[in-house]
Amino acid sequence: MLEELKQRVYEANMLLPKYKLVTFTWGNVSEFDPETGLFAIKPSGVDYDKLTPEDMVLVDLQGNKVEGRYNPSSDTATHVVLYNRFPMIRGVVHTHSTWATSWAQAGLSIPCYGTTHADYFYGDIPCVRCLTKEEIEEAYERNTGVLIADEFERMKKDPAAVPGVLCKNHGVFTWGKDAHEAVHNSVVVEECAKMAALARLINPSVEPAPQKLQDKHYFRKHGANAYYGQN
Amino acid sequence: MLEELKQRVYEANMLLPKYKLVTFTWGNVSEFDPETGLFAIKPSGVDYDKLTPEDMVLVDLQGNKVEGRYNPSSDTATHVVLYNRFPMIRGVVHTHSTWATSWAQAGLSIPCYGTTHADYFYGDIPCVRCLTKEEIEEAYERNTGVLIADEFERMKKDPAAVPGVLCKNHGVFTWGKDAHEAVHNSVVVEECAKMAALARLINPSVEPAPQKLQDKHYFRKHGANAYYGQN
Amino acid sequence: MLEELKQRVYEANMLLPKYKLVTFTWGNVSEFDPETGLFAIKPSGVDYDKLTPEDMVLVDLQGNKVEGRYNPSSDTATHVVLYNRFPMIRGVVHTHSTWATSWAQAGLSIPCYGTTHADYFYGDIPCVRCLTKEEIEEAYERNTGVLIADEFERMKKDPAAVPGVLCKNHGVFTWGKDAHEAVHNSVVVEECAKMAALARLINPSVEPAPQKLQDKHYFRKHGANAYYGQN
Amino acid sequence: MLEELKQRVYEANMLLPKYKLVTFTWGNVSEFDPETGLFAIKPSGVDYDKLTPEDMVLVDLQGNKVEGRYNPSSDTATHVVLYNRFPMIRGVVHTHSTWATSWAQAGLSIPCYGTTHADYFYGDIPCVRCLTKEEIEEAYERNTGVLIADEFERMKKDPAAVPGVLCKNHGVFTWGKDAHEAVHNSVVVEECAKMAALARLINPSVEPAPQKLQDKHYFRKHGANAYYGQN
Repeated sequence: MLEELKQRVYEANMLLPKYKLVTFTWGNVSEFDPETGLFAIKPSGVDYDKLTPEDMVLVDLQGNKVEGRYNPSSDTATHVVLYNRFPMIRGVVHTHSTWATSWAQAGLSIPCYGTTHADYFYGDIPCVRCLTKEEIEEAYERNTGVLIADEFERMKKDPAAVPGVLCKNHGVFTWGKDAHEAVHNSVVVEECAKMAALARLINPSVEPAPQKLQDKHYFRKHGANAYYGQN
Repeated sequence: MLEELKQRVYEANMLLPKYKLVTFTWGNVSEFDPETGLFAIKPSGVDYDKLTPEDMVLVDLQGNKVEGRYNPSSDTATHVVLYNRFPMIRGVVHTHSTWATSWAQAGLSIPCYGTTHADYFYGDIPCVRCLTKEEIEEAYERNTGVLIADEFERMKKDPAAVPGVLCKNHGVFTWGKDAHEAVHNSVVVEECAKMAALARLINPSVEPAPQKLQDKHYFRKHGANAYYGQN
Repeated sequence: MLEELKQRVYEANMLLPKYKLVTFTWGNVSEFDPETGLFAIKPSGVDYDKLTPEDMVLVDLQGNKVEGRYNPSSDTATHVVLYNRFPMIRGVVHTHSTWATSWAQAGLSIPCYGTTHADYFYGDIPCVRCLTKEEIEEAYERNTGVLIADEFERMKKDPAAVPGVLCKNHGVFTWGKDAHEAVHNSVVVEECAKMAALARLINPSVEPAPQKLQDKHYFRKHGANAYYGQN
Repeated sequence: MLEELKQRVYEANMLLPKYKLVTFTWGNVSEFDPETGLFAIKPSGVDYDKLTPEDMVLVDLQGNKVEGRYNPSSDTATHVVLYNRFPMIRGVVHTHSTWATSWAQAGLSIPCYGTTHADYFYGDIPCVRCLTKEEIEEAYERNTGVLIADEFERMKKDPAAVPGVLCKNHGVFTWGKDAHEAVHNSVVVEECAKMAALARLINPSVEPAPQKLQDKHYFRKHGANAYYGQN
């Protein structure tokens, strides 16, 4: 059932070690299929070099496991909330990639210091707060998703224009129009996180890029007047 | 004798260069066999690309070499003490991995800044003091183990919940339920050391993760109520 | 048409991932052929692992596409200006390489801290300002080239002796006597950017190398009295 | 003539890219043969992937080329002085390795912050001053060697116990009992340079390791009472 979806999700998961975004099993990718209302996700704690496409677990948007011999990722409930709250997305990735997670540990949003960032993210890559004691106790993984969605609403950020977030003291979630694009955005966050940290090392009083330059780069790749690439 | 143990210890030693935890011969792994009361350990100063399983040296818990054509690792006496004082452990690793050793040189414990750390280590990864002149002269390697065990007792740290330590101005020891898990923990220490240093670079006033979040992540992977993975 | 040029430009583009100067499609290389007055350049947004020599696009010095099934790089207009304004150059490279782009984001020129830098660049690797709102709106990519050339004139820098530049909040352009040398200079900029940032980390009050040492190294490799290499 | 020497020097040169100590042709290795009074050295500016053992150039201790179709390394005169002034050494390496060169650019000696360093270098890895204008004009490469040897005499450092040096604003020279050991020491300098920089990043008030610990580690590997390894 949904063999092509599982194959794509398997391949997207295997990109995480390829792009050096994960150590051991510290990451997971899912993709949502709107026809069936199910998403496929990596099983919990299974080594990347032992994964097969058939190991992917199918889950519905209430968080019920529908098919699969393994438990789904322990972060499945976060994916469930993100698909429910951000209906335009079809892929979600969670990693502890080194530089982005260091920003999350530092508790700071990643400012847009240049066009590499502006090509993909419109404005800061936000860092949302830690969950409260009550939120952790009630439903840690679900409330992680709820917090992300609530914070995006509060900040009036469009998840299509800001396809990722840092969770304070934790790690990174990114998303996209499919699993592959969500992984692509994880690579972007990691590279932008590295260059932003280095820019601050080189010049502690570095300022974000001018808004006009951010607009130019974002909109030359996105929206009606885009002219980057072959479209 | 104990060919399977030697094979496992050989394989665990070969993971050190694979995970880029060692330069040249700067590391060693051992595993203890409770039935015979012996452990197998890497020989001293032999290149990783010339090692074979038969080169592993068998040593008893008094530190006597029982079998092997080579001298055991010069750090063997530290392994002996750790197996005697921490009876629940079955594998020990010593490395000079880059970021963790930099923390050891800095003389600072690695604070728990996030869930990557909390998933494996409950609280700080402690940095124990240098040996005194007298301790160095009397029995350097043995006293390194004694200091680690004494400090864990003094700090009331459970070696099962804190499976590693930094030795000031020196390097890292980790342990686990077998040699493979001890190596796994060495990888974790190195990655947490890197992300903790980067978090401080990005935000010099970074604070440890809230205790509630540390508890949540540690206990979702360890203990009676764990739900990470396939168990 | 110009198959050898396209082959060389293809090969030079493929060096960017080899030297780890690009992530995804974030870079482009061109080479100019003075006989035909055309240059070949990478198409826009095509993955490096799908590129072929025939995919290279031919463009004239007015910026018109002359041949090719793809759109040329979105940065083509910058290449056009550089070939027009710096008539001695035959190759141009644009990257977002990590350390050099971090300097560009920091908005600082890279000082000449040592002989590695002095062997290739005579004096600072300059960082030119952001474009103004008007310059961005009028013709972003073309005005990037105009600004670089104007700034080199204003600073009285010889583009042959300073074969590269940082663009604030953006990235790096380098050039050379052909595409291959321009890529070579991109590698040099990245390595010098890294070592300059680390030198400042190690010693915040680091000073540029003495002018006499800079002269010695630059002129032992360049000009009439060069004696480095086999010439 | 001296085919085995040339083979060894070729192999030692090829270790520089293997250990990521060089970019392009920015390094050279030589080994001295006391019977003939000649040393073999890498030719100047030849790519590592085109080198062959027969390309190595033979030079005498007056700096005259004795055999070889290529010019010897432009740094040959430095090697000549080091072999003359440090008669116990048989191998010399010059690199611009990233972290060590960053210390050289910072103009600071690398303090001994831990046992990784103390296992190979007794005390600081010194950084010698820039040459004066007069020294550069008179004989740059030769005077680099003269300065190193003079400074070691002035500081009463034994080149056997301190097998390497940083040259301010330039790079690194290391030496050893043969070319292979000299390369080994270049790897050690680079790794110690990295960990020393990171230790200062983590703790700006880091202090050198206690002298007693430095002595212990140095002398457990060197001298009459060494007990590391299989000897």
